[in-house]
Amino acid sequence: METVKHQKWWGWGEEGLEFTYEDKPKFAGFLLDNVGVDVHDSASATPDFDALPVPEPVLKPALKKALAAIVGEENLSTDTECRLVHSFGRGVVDLIRLRQPDLGRMCDVVCYPGSEDEVVALMRAAVKSRSVLIPYGGGSNIVGALSAPRGETRTVISVDMGRMNTVLSIDAASGLALIQAGVLGPDMEEQLNAQGWTMGHFPDSFTWSTLGGWIATRSSGMQSDKYGDIADMTRGLRMVTPDGILELHPLPSTASGPSVREMVLGSEGRLGIITSAWMQVHRVPAKRTIQGYFFPTYEAGLKAMEEIAASDAAPSITRVMDKYETAFSIANGKQSSPMDHFLNQAVQKLMSMKGWNLDDACLSLIGFEGSSRHVRYEKGLVDAIISRNGGMGVGTGPGTLYDQKKYDVPYIRDFLLDRGIPADVSETATPWRYMAQMHDETIAAAHRAMERAGVQGYVMCHLSHSYHAGACQYFTFAVNDSSNSMLDTYYTVKKAIQQSFMDNHGTVSHHHGVGVEHAAWLPQDISTTGIRFQGLLFDGVDPDHNLCPRP
Amino acid sequence: METVKHQKWWGWGEEGLEFTYEDKPKFAGFLLDNVGVDVHDSASATPDFDALPVPEPVLKPALKKALAAIVGEENLSTDTECRLVHSFGRGVVDLIRLRQPDLGRMCDVVCYPGSEDEVVALMRAAVKSRSVLIPYGGGSNIVGALSAPRGETRTVISVDMGRMNTVLSIDAASGLALIQAGVLGPDMEEQLNAQGWTMGHFPDSFTWSTLGGWIATRSSGMQSDKYGDIADMTRGLRMVTPDGILELHPLPSTASGPSVREMVLGSEGRLGIITSAWMQVHRVPAKRTIQGYFFPTYEAGLKAMEEIAASDAAPSITRVMDKYETAFSIANGKQSSPMDHFLNQAVQKLMSMKGWNLDDACLSLIGFEGSSRHVRYEKGLVDAIISRNGGMGVGTGPGTLYDQKKYDVPYIRDFLLDRGIPADVSETATPWRYMAQMHDETIAAAHRAMERAGVQGYVMCHLSHSYHAGACQYFTFAVNDSSNSMLDTYYTVKKAIQQSFMDNHGTVSHHHGVGVEHAAWLPQDISTTGIRFQGLLFDGVDPDHNLCPRP
Repeated sequence: METVKHQKWWGWGEEGLEFTYEDKPKFAGFLLDNVGVDVHDSASATPDFDALPVPEPVLKPALKKALAAIVGEENLSTDTECRLVHSFGRGVVDLIRLRQPDLGRMCDVVCYPGSEDEVVALMRAAVKSRSVLIPYGGGSNIVGALSAPRGETRTVISVDMGRMNTVLSIDAASGLALIQAGVLGPDMEEQLNAQGWTMGHFPDSFTWSTLGGWIATRSSGMQSDKYGDIADMTRGLRMVTPDGILELHPLPSTASGPSVREMVLGSEGRLGIITSAWMQVHRVPAKRTIQGYFFPTYEAGLKAMEEIAASDAAPSITRVMDKYETAFSIANGKQSSPMDHFLNQAVQKLMSMKGWNLDDACLSLIGFEGSSRHVRYEKGLVDAIISRNGGMGVGTGPGTLYDQKKYDVPYIRDFLLDRGIPADVSETATPWRYMAQMHDETIAAAHRAMERAGVQGYVMCHLSHSYHAGACQYFTFAVNDSSNSMLDTYYTVKKAIQQSFMDNHGTVSHHHGVGVEHAAWLPQDISTTGIRFQGLLFDGVDPDHNLCPRP
Repeated sequence: METVKHQKWWGWGEEGLEFTYEDKPKFAGFLLDNVGVDVHDSASATPDFDALPVPEPVLKPALKKALAAIVGEENLSTDTECRLVHSFGRGVVDLIRLRQPDLGRMCDVVCYPGSEDEVVALMRAAVKSRSVLIPYGGGSNIVGALSAPRGETRTVISVDMGRMNTVLSIDAASGLALIQAGVLGPDMEEQLNAQGWTMGHFPDSFTWSTLGGWIATRSSGMQSDKYGDIADMTRGLRMVTPDGILELHPLPSTASGPSVREMVLGSEGRLGIITSAWMQVHRVPAKRTIQGYFFPTYEAGLKAMEEIAASDAAPSITRVMDKYETAFSIANGKQSSPMDHFLNQAVQKLMSMKGWNLDDACLSLIGFEGSSRHVRYEKGLVDAIISRNGGMGVGTGPGTLYDQKKYDVPYIRDFLLDRGIPADVSETATPWRYMAQMHDETIAAAHRAMERAGVQGYVMCHLSHSYHAGACQYFTFAVNDSSNSMLDTYYTVKKAIQQSFMDNHGTVSHHHGVGVEHAAWLPQDISTTGIRFQGLLFDGVDPDHNLCPRP
């Protein structure tokens, strides 16, 4: 399908786009000091496509013919690169498996339906032929949800929704747009913006994730404080299930429970394939600004965000980096970046005068949207709270930089992986009361795990989404292990972090989903009775586990 | 159980509290003109308790002994009045049935557990003895959910949660309170207020409804625009199910889906008994005000609310009465009420000068909360929108009156029923685009139904809760039929209204729940596939339908 864009098969994003340290004078030193890797040493090359032991597709001619009759010959592919792209998410585990190579159970065929009717026909064909269906959006999944279980003997059909990529209609009075599920973030915003609207949903994966994927994984974007999580924005939807089409017409709210809408949200392909949704959209605001602040400590930043959440102010973004992530941000800056500018001159002097320990200083970004007057009013409320907690404003420089680079992090991850440094992210949400404890315990747990594994590594964290009752904390970690046990080392740290989430009043994931990678912790989160409730749905709707079967 | 307060068995609220028209000079004339009933004619007396054909309880001595062993002899009752109270909600259908009398399948025994352990033991005893369990909160249910199906042969146990009525702890940092599910609204707010907190949940049923009931029915309060619906406030909970205890610890948000929390919300007793919940609570605001406005037409009011929802302002209450409800409000006022004051003097003159048709004028109430400065700021934003839509402010008089009388409506309903006027409420939510259409079509459908039934009647409506994408409209109707076919007449109108909700892009209920009364329309709301999803849960968790079985 030439009209559907794909990421490079071996890493994040488009071919040709890569992270470079060469315009960031502090980066190499930072990496050497903190992870023990010299960027000037040779990096591993792109995995060798021709050397990959790609198995022949398990696909009987009759089924292939039936699938081609549904979507058209030109919208079906058994091409090796196409199958590779559709069999792996962009999580570090999937990328490591591609490099080992350990291809597991790849999909056999990729279908690109162009309409809901075709999705219905694919669903019927899959159930009838006892095949497996795995819906595919932008491929950004990092919880292992795109691969079929090892040992799956049935035909595995990847359903790429990329042709269903249109904003179908906008109900301007209600601020609702009917949008096809396969649209990628930038394409969707472009269509909305052209009519003066925005959905306000900007997850880190924005460039390579789709509406259907966001709904299926309960995604959350960086402006969720104002626009809500995807669960709040999704007001109606259509999903093709083995039983027929689930149709939920758009509603601002309803008392009919248990909420079927909420059964679809986070269903991760296991109840059906979402084809379209009625989403909340907003007029592009007159004014949008991201203000930078510094706090003397992370705890002070957390306290300020807690107070903002309880105040009359309602900013669009609340973000505080801990000292480790602040240091990384500075090291990741270009010489001429606003970050450098602010830290090198007046600000550092002021911090010293205030008696701050400069190594503890934490960068915070607060976003405001609305009319100019509203932004001024809210910024006034927030500034007072930040001052009261010892913070200080540093203007729009860091925010501007953040806005430019916010989607670039996965490219750094791939750069590090090329150098034997597996890096990943884990995030959770916690009531305010446990935020500092969660942070300190998780950082410590990660370091203990690195010590156990005998590797050098780095872990850092930021608060990324605030609510009345608490917030999300987003941890990023990297370990120096280019050996064959890279994956074991990775899991030692990853598991320590996830267990710390459970031990410190957190949830298994705030917005990356459960998938395969986080499933082991779910009983500790929603209790075994909760697992049983979910199982009743999965087993009842899909008794033969044709849909995204789990290992 | 003497420590648990109950409503009068034959109507709303406490014995001795009743509606009177005598201090409302316009009420009698309004009723005569619009419903054709003279309040001076004799009213039916309270139903004769001794004449009720109350069946003997179906309760084997062994089971009675087992239940008493769980909750204690003093917390078990087979007393007739106690059984009556627990077998009927306070919906008009239930009250008519009490008057006919048509007692249906009353409960056999009432148990008052004092702890979660006792609820667990009751659940075990019920499943083991093949009995029916119906949890009971404040008894305010108006969708028929408290009565067992006719022909139910098993023992029906009402589980009154009234002894579990304590705010157990408050997490001040997170704005979360752990509260037992059986607490009535006023008792809960008193406990919270004593420590400076409020939950901000004030449904019309507030005085006679409980936390557990709110969660089980997806309740919504009159300040939901600021505080959210109960579904937003409920961050964690414990529920006793036939399978064991479901425990969801408090989280500000989570990506684990399908959301088990949302399976409990709106489960109406069919998945288990909620014993406690972690609820969002807020510091009592420094300033709280309800401002009155008039619009030249209801449509102008709707348009203003739509614009407020899309604006930077976030008021706590948005309410617009149509001209019918405005007229009723005025007729329901005391001579000395602020409403009279405002309408009789300057305001009427101003309206006339503006060329308004006074009969079309619609009263609106907008609530603001926060610091004094914040209230001023938000009121400024709202005032501008209201002006732009032709509305005018009339100060705090109507709001003060509303605050005083907001929980009194059910007493009027009982007063009318005594005079052969069954009256009820039906509410729905709709995207903004369909709000005016929903209003006009539903009013017309109700009038056509009254015509079909050959009765005089009245129907009125207000917008009660606003969201980004739309709002709730709340219809109240009354018909003049004191005959034996009162219930048929009632249903003719009620069903016409509910079908209009479905025909005009609405939901089956915005905050009263589905229960028995609205179940027929649910497939039109959530589609048959949605019904099947819900059924998988109900049938899976409670295969023998011990929990609130439906006819």
